[in-house]
Amino acid sequence: MTQARMTPKCSVFIATSLDGYIARDDGSIDWLEQANASVPPGEDCGYRQFMSSVDTLVMGRNTFDLVLTFDAWPYGDTPVVVMTHRRVTPPGHVPPSVSFSSATPSELVESLGANGARHVYVDGGRTIQSFLAAGLIDEMTITVIPILLGSGRTLFGALERDVRLAHLSTTAYDFGFVQSRYRVLKSA
Amino acid sequence: MTQARMTPKCSVFIATSLDGYIARDDGSIDWLEQANASVPPGEDCGYRQFMSSVDTLVMGRNTFDLVLTFDAWPYGDTPVVVMTHRRVTPPGHVPPSVSFSSATPSELVESLGANGARHVYVDGGRTIQSFLAAGLIDEMTITVIPILLGSGRTLFGALERDVRLAHLSTTAYDFGFVQSRYRVLKSA
Repeated sequence: MTQARMTPKCSVFIATSLDGYIARDDGSIDWLEQANASVPPGEDCGYRQFMSSVDTLVMGRNTFDLVLTFDAWPYGDTPVVVMTHRRVTPPGHVPPSVSFSSATPSELVESLGANGARHVYVDGGRTIQSFLAAGLIDEMTITVIPILLGSGRTLFGALERDVRLAHLSTTAYDFGFVQSRYRVLKSA
Repeated sequence: MTQARMTPKCSVFIATSLDGYIARDDGSIDWLEQANASVPPGEDCGYRQFMSSVDTLVMGRNTFDLVLTFDAWPYGDTPVVVMTHRRVTPPGHVPPSVSFSSATPSELVESLGANGARHVYVDGGRTIQSFLAAGLIDEMTITVIPILLGSGRTLFGALERDVRLAHLSTTAYDFGFVQSRYRVLKSA
């Protein structure tokens, strides 16, 4: 088995405002929860199907802290790696499927691959940005919510060079969400 | 005739990178010109149809200076208002259809309406931002180019409050552009 075959696919699946924010400056997603309230029951914009294809989650500490405030742990037994340099104990109950890592994105992806991961869901703004900057994201599914926030935490960040994408598909939902899927083209 | 009937519709029709930039930091749009080279001959993503519905253009000084570098003046005899506080003479030939204004967006829209304008094309990042912040944009057609630039001049800017949108339509083109049209919902 070659080294290349050990590298898991890394995907993003995230919602943003039309002006590219994934949360307000204070991290709140009230605007997204309000928008989700307009989604018909049973419609999940492909989330369950995506999740069923994923064997590992990687997220930043901000996203993890937000998820811990949810009523229920949303990821079942799927292993979750929280990228953090903060050594403080997280608040509340941490499921046994959660581990913490201060590795670089490249180190982490290599180690996950060596341990059998095949499809990693990369979540959270800064984590996605660091994976994109390291050329480690393969596919992005971005759902645009019909709102402008004007400020907040951005999905995308600085890059050393342009990142070209191949558009795979777009779905416009009756309730106003527009979901596009892109493949990241690796530079030569 | 009521005052309300004098207010022209104001529309945006613009291309951005997936990370929301309309130009690089130095104003260059090489990435957009390169993307446009992949568009089949005769396809204009609705631009001519949009332009035929427009009777007035409003743009900022940066956009105007960029347009002056094009091989040909692209707007025919359609009146163009350049919003600028710079009193210097623009370089090169300025068509007689061009005028300059240092009015606020509200003042300008009112004056255009009083002079018979019915559909205004608002172009350029800072101009669009100031019109949006003043609640003057009615409709936006945004064409997302499949590329991340990482930095540059943003389409959207700060807002005093959320701006809610109604999604009108989305077209995903074979060559990877995704064009969405939104109506701006006026706050109560």
